[in-house]
Amino acid sequence: MARVLVPAGEGRAMRISAGTCFKVVDVMGGQVGDLFAFNENDVSEYASASHTRSIIKKIFPQSSDTIYTSRRRAILDLLSDCSPGRHDSLIAACDPARYESSGLTATHRSCAVNLHEAMAEYGGMCVPTPQPFNVFMEVAVGANGNIEVSAATSEPGDYLVFRARLDTIVVLSSCPFDVYAINSGGVTPLMLETM
Amino acid sequence: MARVLVPAGEGRAMRISAGTCFKVVDVMGGQVGDLFAFNENDVSEYASASHTRSIIKKIFPQSSDTIYTSRRRAILDLLSDCSPGRHDSLIAACDPARYESSGLTATHRSCAVNLHEAMAEYGGMCVPTPQPFNVFMEVAVGANGNIEVSAATSEPGDYLVFRARLDTIVVLSSCPFDVYAINSGGVTPLMLETM
Repeated sequence: MARVLVPAGEGRAMRISAGTCFKVVDVMGGQVGDLFAFNENDVSEYASASHTRSIIKKIFPQSSDTIYTSRRRAILDLLSDCSPGRHDSLIAACDPARYESSGLTATHRSCAVNLHEAMAEYGGMCVPTPQPFNVFMEVAVGANGNIEVSAATSEPGDYLVFRARLDTIVVLSSCPFDVYAINSGGVTPLMLETM
Repeated sequence: MARVLVPAGEGRAMRISAGTCFKVVDVMGGQVGDLFAFNENDVSEYASASHTRSIIKKIFPQSSDTIYTSRRRAILDLLSDCSPGRHDSLIAACDPARYESSGLTATHRSCAVNLHEAMAEYGGMCVPTPQPFNVFMEVAVGANGNIEVSAATSEPGDYLVFRARLDTIVVLSSCPFDVYAINSGGVTPLMLETM
């Protein structure tokens, strides 16, 4: 069993072998996590929100759904969901440009930079920041396609269980977004642990 | 004035200078187009569906909306819309893997290959296939996030007018998808023309 604490507002990577199950835990509750996953043997293949949406025909992945790669291969199965159950696939990772546009310094921590820092330990990454799966993120859509974002409602200890279908590098960023409330009760840690 | 006919099932690129307006025309009606746009001076910056959704808080861009790049800069303004008005930002470009998964040959034409062929004339492209803006594509979403795709309802001659905000390479693919009906009445040509 391996366990990686993702400190508040930071990102961490973990290697997960094909067939291994792992948990994504919202340690203190109310914390959005940006989840990325790459084929360990070729990081140009990554978990793709747009290919997954096209295949499962859902914006919000649910228990029993599979996450697909940019080459339409299964990379993660979402086996179970002990959380309110809303996980977004629409909203881009926050990045320095996002904080600049709100007049904040470009050195504000961000999920995009967290991803690239975490991947630097694994030989870097050649693709732009993929659209993440935003676990525990409360996003609602109207029939007109309007998007409404509100604060995460997950409770302390809520978690998701995934199974890797490929040898995978998983990256999880505790989203440091604080321009408006997407996290509840400030930015807090997350945990990755194999089972 | 420049005009480029996009033959049925194929893709074409066009350079559009900053400030220039152009039309995307559904020549015969009922045809989905995969629209991509790149900063001509640095093609690693591209029109990004996920950044655009995050900024405009809409899944379906409408008249008066702006399309943003992967660096959160305005690249296209959607000035007017003479069509039923549904244009998708959720569904990935079709690609050889999509057709293989339906038992069709991997040499079936696809929007992803159309994009890369069209960009080859402009010095190639270093990013993976971006999530396109699927013009004239009828996609509906439920409050639960379920996605429903149906056949395009655009009429012959329906069009969109965009203005480029950067010096842009626009690529338009007449989507050759024929596994189920997203196009009405077969795969037909589209047109790009400056104004």
